[in-house]
Amino acid sequence: SLHRIKASGLKLQLCTNETQATRESFVRKLRALGFDISVAQVTAPAPAACHLLRERGLRPHLLVHHDLVPEFAEIDKTNPNCVVLGDAAENFTYANLNEAFRLLIGMEKPVLISLGKGRYYKETDGLKLDVGAYMKALEYACDIQAEVVGKPAKRFFESALAELGVPPEQAIMIGDDIVSDVGGAQRCGMRALQVRTGKFRPSDENHPEVKPDAYVNNLAEAVDIILQEL
Amino acid sequence: SLHRIKASGLKLQLCTNETQATRESFVRKLRALGFDISVAQVTAPAPAACHLLRERGLRPHLLVHHDLVPEFAEIDKTNPNCVVLGDAAENFTYANLNEAFRLLIGMEKPVLISLGKGRYYKETDGLKLDVGAYMKALEYACDIQAEVVGKPAKRFFESALAELGVPPEQAIMIGDDIVSDVGGAQRCGMRALQVRTGKFRPSDENHPEVKPDAYVNNLAEAVDIILQEL
Repeated sequence: SLHRIKASGLKLQLCTNETQATRESFVRKLRALGFDISVAQVTAPAPAACHLLRERGLRPHLLVHHDLVPEFAEIDKTNPNCVVLGDAAENFTYANLNEAFRLLIGMEKPVLISLGKGRYYKETDGLKLDVGAYMKALEYACDIQAEVVGKPAKRFFESALAELGVPPEQAIMIGDDIVSDVGGAQRCGMRALQVRTGKFRPSDENHPEVKPDAYVNNLAEAVDIILQEL
Repeated sequence: SLHRIKASGLKLQLCTNETQATRESFVRKLRALGFDISVAQVTAPAPAACHLLRERGLRPHLLVHHDLVPEFAEIDKTNPNCVVLGDAAENFTYANLNEAFRLLIGMEKPVLISLGKGRYYKETDGLKLDVGAYMKALEYACDIQAEVVGKPAKRFFESALAELGVPPEQAIMIGDDIVSDVGGAQRCGMRALQVRTGKFRPSDENHPEVKPDAYVNNLAEAVDIILQEL
């Protein structure tokens, strides 16, 4: 399907909430699976966070996955004035959570930037709490609201559109997550198709707030429809 | 002050949200400090939880402090159909949190019982996230509401009153926490004094929702006032 999009001359951008790896290693994995994708074609929360940190002169304390740390290599992390939270997995220790909490509660105006707000996800050895759960813990303890930079944040889709160089009405989002993918893209002025694969659940078709522009059975069918419309 | 209360013939009950130790070891610590207190004079969240578990035929998976486990010795914990959450401290590991989460999300109607909802507390080596933060993490991940059995739950004060054998209008709560101690007791029909020690902060005197029946500088002054009124 990606080859057909490329051959048609359409532009393509991958929007992922992956925060357990750098874009480089994410792309390496995709290329090994046969997907012809470059790093510039990936919009991910960590680079979006770096953009925001630079813009506001923020120096983060990182509570993220080991493999994500290189994304923040160029960012000044001395004397932190905010906390950046990602899916830290094994780094979500009691000591690390207390450390992030102490830094936040010690700030005059605590700033917590979260790379997502997922509830949980599935790995081969079972379900795992996602970054959103730990975000809620820190929000409650500090009585603050985190700023979320991954999907479904409007800014996130805007930066993907900027990368593509097209206005929202000329872009179509294809995703399996009714809220993060479909809802987020639509709020940004894009059309959005939901695929009936991956995270899709039949109950999504009765979602109280989000209604995709269309459902498709899979990515191939989404590409068929888009190419027909051209 | 406790001696003076005892000498006056007044009944005394200690209401604590302590969940890092059994009542036995809590009382041992108090007695070592010179306080003449018995186990029956202590109302604490773990025994309250045991009462609730028995009443509803619930078999808990425990995510609590090692030293609290003996409080649940008599409770059937096979094939758990609920999770009991306390201030587990070092037991708040990534693995243990995922395990509690998986049990909850696997239940048809997840039941999470929390021994408190504190945000954080201070120890000699610094501030620590309290049970409330981890409760919020699990609530969010499972999209549920926990049942809180410690202060300020109404049930908790009711069980202290039952232990004393007096109606609420004949009891006075003395505490340093404006919400957990004063607010909780008042909602139960008791009068409540706030001491200006411990957790007390000057901003408590402008609390938007809770107003103590009186402020006192310390426990001794509270006892003075009570004995004068007799």
